[in-house]
Amino acid sequence: MTIGIGVIGYGYWGPNLVRNFMSTAHVRVVGIAERRADVRASLAQSAPAISVFESEEELIARDDIDAVVIATPVSTHYPLAKAALAKGKHVLVEKPLASSSAEVEDLIAHAEKGGRVLMVDHTFLFTGAVQTMTQLVRRGELGDVCYIDSTRVNLGLFQPDVNCLWDLAPHDLSIIDQLIGSDIVSINATGYGHIDPMRPDMVFLTLHYANKQVAHFNLSWMSPVKVRRFTVGGTKKMLVWDDLDQDQKIKIYDHGIEFQQEDQRTTILPEYRIGDIYSPLVSRKEALKGVAEHFIQVIRGEAQSTMDGQRGLRVVRILEAAQTELDRNLQIVARKRQAVLQGATN
Amino acid sequence: MTIGIGVIGYGYWGPNLVRNFMSTAHVRVVGIAERRADVRASLAQSAPAISVFESEEELIARDDIDAVVIATPVSTHYPLAKAALAKGKHVLVEKPLASSSAEVEDLIAHAEKGGRVLMVDHTFLFTGAVQTMTQLVRRGELGDVCYIDSTRVNLGLFQPDVNCLWDLAPHDLSIIDQLIGSDIVSINATGYGHIDPMRPDMVFLTLHYANKQVAHFNLSWMSPVKVRRFTVGGTKKMLVWDDLDQDQKIKIYDHGIEFQQEDQRTTILPEYRIGDIYSPLVSRKEALKGVAEHFIQVIRGEAQSTMDGQRGLRVVRILEAAQTELDRNLQIVARKRQAVLQGATN
Amino acid sequence: MTIGIGVIGYGYWGPNLVRNFMSTAHVRVVGIAERRADVRASLAQSAPAISVFESEEELIARDDIDAVVIATPVSTHYPLAKAALAKGKHVLVEKPLASSSAEVEDLIAHAEKGGRVLMVDHTFLFTGAVQTMTQLVRRGELGDVCYIDSTRVNLGLFQPDVNCLWDLAPHDLSIIDQLIGSDIVSINATGYGHIDPMRPDMVFLTLHYANKQVAHFNLSWMSPVKVRRFTVGGTKKMLVWDDLDQDQKIKIYDHGIEFQQEDQRTTILPEYRIGDIYSPLVSRKEALKGVAEHFIQVIRGEAQSTMDGQRGLRVVRILEAAQTELDRNLQIVARKRQAVLQGATN
Amino acid sequence: MTIGIGVIGYGYWGPNLVRNFMSTAHVRVVGIAERRADVRASLAQSAPAISVFESEEELIARDDIDAVVIATPVSTHYPLAKAALAKGKHVLVEKPLASSSAEVEDLIAHAEKGGRVLMVDHTFLFTGAVQTMTQLVRRGELGDVCYIDSTRVNLGLFQPDVNCLWDLAPHDLSIIDQLIGSDIVSINATGYGHIDPMRPDMVFLTLHYANKQVAHFNLSWMSPVKVRRFTVGGTKKMLVWDDLDQDQKIKIYDHGIEFQQEDQRTTILPEYRIGDIYSPLVSRKEALKGVAEHFIQVIRGEAQSTMDGQRGLRVVRILEAAQTELDRNLQIVARKRQAVLQGATN
Repeated sequence: MTIGIGVIGYGYWGPNLVRNFMSTAHVRVVGIAERRADVRASLAQSAPAISVFESEEELIARDDIDAVVIATPVSTHYPLAKAALAKGKHVLVEKPLASSSAEVEDLIAHAEKGGRVLMVDHTFLFTGAVQTMTQLVRRGELGDVCYIDSTRVNLGLFQPDVNCLWDLAPHDLSIIDQLIGSDIVSINATGYGHIDPMRPDMVFLTLHYANKQVAHFNLSWMSPVKVRRFTVGGTKKMLVWDDLDQDQKIKIYDHGIEFQQEDQRTTILPEYRIGDIYSPLVSRKEALKGVAEHFIQVIRGEAQSTMDGQRGLRVVRILEAAQTELDRNLQIVARKRQAVLQGATN
Repeated sequence: MTIGIGVIGYGYWGPNLVRNFMSTAHVRVVGIAERRADVRASLAQSAPAISVFESEEELIARDDIDAVVIATPVSTHYPLAKAALAKGKHVLVEKPLASSSAEVEDLIAHAEKGGRVLMVDHTFLFTGAVQTMTQLVRRGELGDVCYIDSTRVNLGLFQPDVNCLWDLAPHDLSIIDQLIGSDIVSINATGYGHIDPMRPDMVFLTLHYANKQVAHFNLSWMSPVKVRRFTVGGTKKMLVWDDLDQDQKIKIYDHGIEFQQEDQRTTILPEYRIGDIYSPLVSRKEALKGVAEHFIQVIRGEAQSTMDGQRGLRVVRILEAAQTELDRNLQIVARKRQAVLQGATN
Repeated sequence: MTIGIGVIGYGYWGPNLVRNFMSTAHVRVVGIAERRADVRASLAQSAPAISVFESEEELIARDDIDAVVIATPVSTHYPLAKAALAKGKHVLVEKPLASSSAEVEDLIAHAEKGGRVLMVDHTFLFTGAVQTMTQLVRRGELGDVCYIDSTRVNLGLFQPDVNCLWDLAPHDLSIIDQLIGSDIVSINATGYGHIDPMRPDMVFLTLHYANKQVAHFNLSWMSPVKVRRFTVGGTKKMLVWDDLDQDQKIKIYDHGIEFQQEDQRTTILPEYRIGDIYSPLVSRKEALKGVAEHFIQVIRGEAQSTMDGQRGLRVVRILEAAQTELDRNLQIVARKRQAVLQGATN
Repeated sequence: MTIGIGVIGYGYWGPNLVRNFMSTAHVRVVGIAERRADVRASLAQSAPAISVFESEEELIARDDIDAVVIATPVSTHYPLAKAALAKGKHVLVEKPLASSSAEVEDLIAHAEKGGRVLMVDHTFLFTGAVQTMTQLVRRGELGDVCYIDSTRVNLGLFQPDVNCLWDLAPHDLSIIDQLIGSDIVSINATGYGHIDPMRPDMVFLTLHYANKQVAHFNLSWMSPVKVRRFTVGGTKKMLVWDDLDQDQKIKIYDHGIEFQQEDQRTTILPEYRIGDIYSPLVSRKEALKGVAEHFIQVIRGEAQSTMDGQRGLRVVRILEAAQTELDRNLQIVARKRQAVLQGATN
């Protein structure tokens, strides 16, 4: 059985999706929908075997398309995915799955009712680094996870319909979903918007978990330097995933705190233990190829989805809660600034 | 006029203070007070010309000591400085100046009344990197400062009487005091304590300023990797100070946001401008030598202090406000964790 | 006028050539010749609009192919290029242009006689870094060039028909050809072969120039770490091109030697001058795209070639001379080893 | 038994020697000889307990000095060491031990005759990195050593009486002496002198060993960037010692070449094996402290010397042979340049 694939949106990510699906077994890329006329014209020339559509509806209506991949602005995910599911298509949606948990729940319900696959493209889960890190954590190599501290900053692309939280945090949240099992009990979120104070391009997010764990995220579209550093502190060891390090994406530090024996203690201060550093070889396979293969395997009934709607829902729920806290916080800041300004004027 | 110097505390920082004062003009290092007998014995052998005291009072009482340098745990700063000022000594105190703003205010009052010099050792202000950065910002090379984002993490030394906020933040706060002129209107602070949840060894602090600026600090004693990266985002350029980079401690990025002309705008999204990167040569002079020289110059009436009590007070006030917010936040987290735990038990 | 392009060889580099020519104006990629049946089958599926040939002759014979691009093992460059020129095609050949200067001279003669374009793909000349570096050197920003020191090592691909000298040195030699004007007066070359001592996978090459300049190359297929560092020492400044540095490919160091005035000299030792470091923005355009465009422009008579046969000839002549010295040296080493071995046996 | 130490020369290295011997057990630093009056004056003030001499002879003549440490320009090592041995002193000399093998042999003879300790300060042998690397190689962790490739470049200090070969190579040669057992059969050496072509400040040195091993050194006083990278290629693994990497001075790469089984071979090309990377914790103890302790232990008869005269002799012999080859080579270059110049004039 060959799966006919239609891709909606041929902007930044679309070409990568098309390229990876084209080289995946049991797949035929049937069509691409794209609104910009010049991109359609260029596609017609470079990929004459693929049908090009101006209208997404037309693509969704095609009988030879079994599955639709949606790589459009976030606000359009829900209507497009819903329309595709309504026509009996399987659906893979770029992260975040939709703009609200209500939308995601509705998509999940439709997919279940129609017996179709609904997946979200949490690409990082298919990187060698994240897969290695997840295995190490699950095997208990680090002991219990105490903290996660992630910096994901660079001069990012401003997105038309989401702020930097909804653009960048889904990566980290989908990864953490694999590393920390317990529930979030408290969220801190604040940030800064260079242009519109209420629409942050820098976000500082802290999640506190029931089981005495913490996760901190520094997310920014406005850093002159690109940093992709994700640290996991465990009771036994510590791990750093630096996605920009070509040779040592994962480093495991045999470092930790040592407590003296009760009877030898002269102080309550712990001491550090510094040990070896170890970098396991991680797969260099393109992550998106793994996503494409996984989507096809799930459609063909050969695998259980690891990136299903429920997972997308968990991520969107945290985004919503973080956004609420972010709004609350930025409004306080705005109010206090206003008060200072008025005080200065009077 | 030669200034007789007495140093109280010969732990981690004391030897550096002694070494630098010994090589400073117009100075004689007269005595060192240290409670540990083995350290005193070793000092007596290696520095026979310096008097060694078990009692701080004894050192402070010496007539040939004109100025006292205090490098002891934070909780002792106030009584020692007060005693020294009472004996008419000039005083240089390690950061933070004291444990509370009330203590600092009292010390300032005593110093003013007695006409003595009261200084706080904000060493970083005398590094070539911070001096260069400050000049660049003040000259307007970066345009207006929008944000500061500082990461100051490593496997730090656990301090006996302060948490990681009071240990690490004074560095950043004393530096920012030179870069941002406007008032703080709102503070977010949260964190994590590996051993005692209420005594954090990781702190995430955000300061919102009246004049639409933000400063974020990631402070940790528990990172396997040492990071000392301080980013300043301006309306014209961006600057990164990486204190671990031996060749390029300061990098100025000619990067920024470009807005299209009103009539050409087809989108509200800004575009990035990427330009050259420039690293000015920064002085490699040992910062603490600069501090020692400055202290002596101020005592001799040759310079105005740039690290006086008022400056130490501003830093301690922010620490206090941040601690209040941190306590409030960590208590919420603790309560919610407790609630989840009880819910799980019931 | 649209130029019909045929590409011979679809191994490591061929796909990049095809992709870049496909997106170049005035070009139609007509055919690809490739000996491996599985690669041909895969091509037929993924690029149905391009004719695929088993035989290079067949491709060369096609009337709708105006220009042939040769990306095959080095030993086949000469016969394939000669055959293509004989059929009146323009020819672009991967580096090195051919296996010997005699072959190159013959190709140049054929190209001139037939009025066809003969070019060698010295891709690095079209990188933003090399173009920026060349302009800086030509403008005299560094003063006079004193030395070039290049390290080009990693776990490289073993080539079937050339050693590491002929594989790696063409990059550096084509670049240096733009930076140093004077003639080579003396060559040192030695190396090491892990498998066959006479077929080195590590080569150390030093070129001495008439005008008191030196160039040293450390070339290796056997380094665990990839290094691409190219240093230019000038009388005024120094420049480092690190091709693996994403942010600062070019750094200009305002460092140099200072000589004291004649009458103040107390010593013959020079002193160092350390200054600022500056990284100009370099173009991130794909170099091979520039090569493809340049080839087409030269064919269309819109540009003079900067990578013509003469340039390829200069590089191959240095390779030949270096190979002679390398052989001579490795034979001496082999003889001496043999002597020691015999001495040990006797 | 306390050993009285006298240090001759208080320039760049002398203060480090004094500081380390002062904190070594069973040692009293009795005197320092230094020709510069201002340095003597400053010493008298900062270290009143140590006698300061203008004349080396005077220091050597002192009865309370049992051992002399010589940290003066290379050309003075021999006469000073000889004089000290003649007075029955033990002697520790900075690297290289002397200016010629004849001198070293004479010193060894004197030391043996007088029953005194003669040691050379090959400091790097006491670094944690070199000790770890040596153990790994000797345990066979890397398999057999195939190659060593060392880059030791920066803006170094010009030395008054030696060129960059004699200044920098002793470090690498003393280290290699521990890693490669077989004899050198052939040497290549060339270089470049910015000021005097026959007095190189850049040297490229290659040693070929009987047992099919090679060592290459890139030594320079004229690099804008400091590099200290030492690579060891083994038949099983590869190792990189980067002395500037604070966290991972030693990295062991589980990389190598794989050969296919005889019957499966379709090609003679080997394939690469890429594996994990591992960084053992290395001691951070100051190397010179280890040297000082070792010298004292050997004098006290508690240890066999690992840095004795024979070892210094092996290093100086290689330096001599390399210098001969360097001179021969640079004279050829000079002659050929002259010929080109004359050709150009005629």
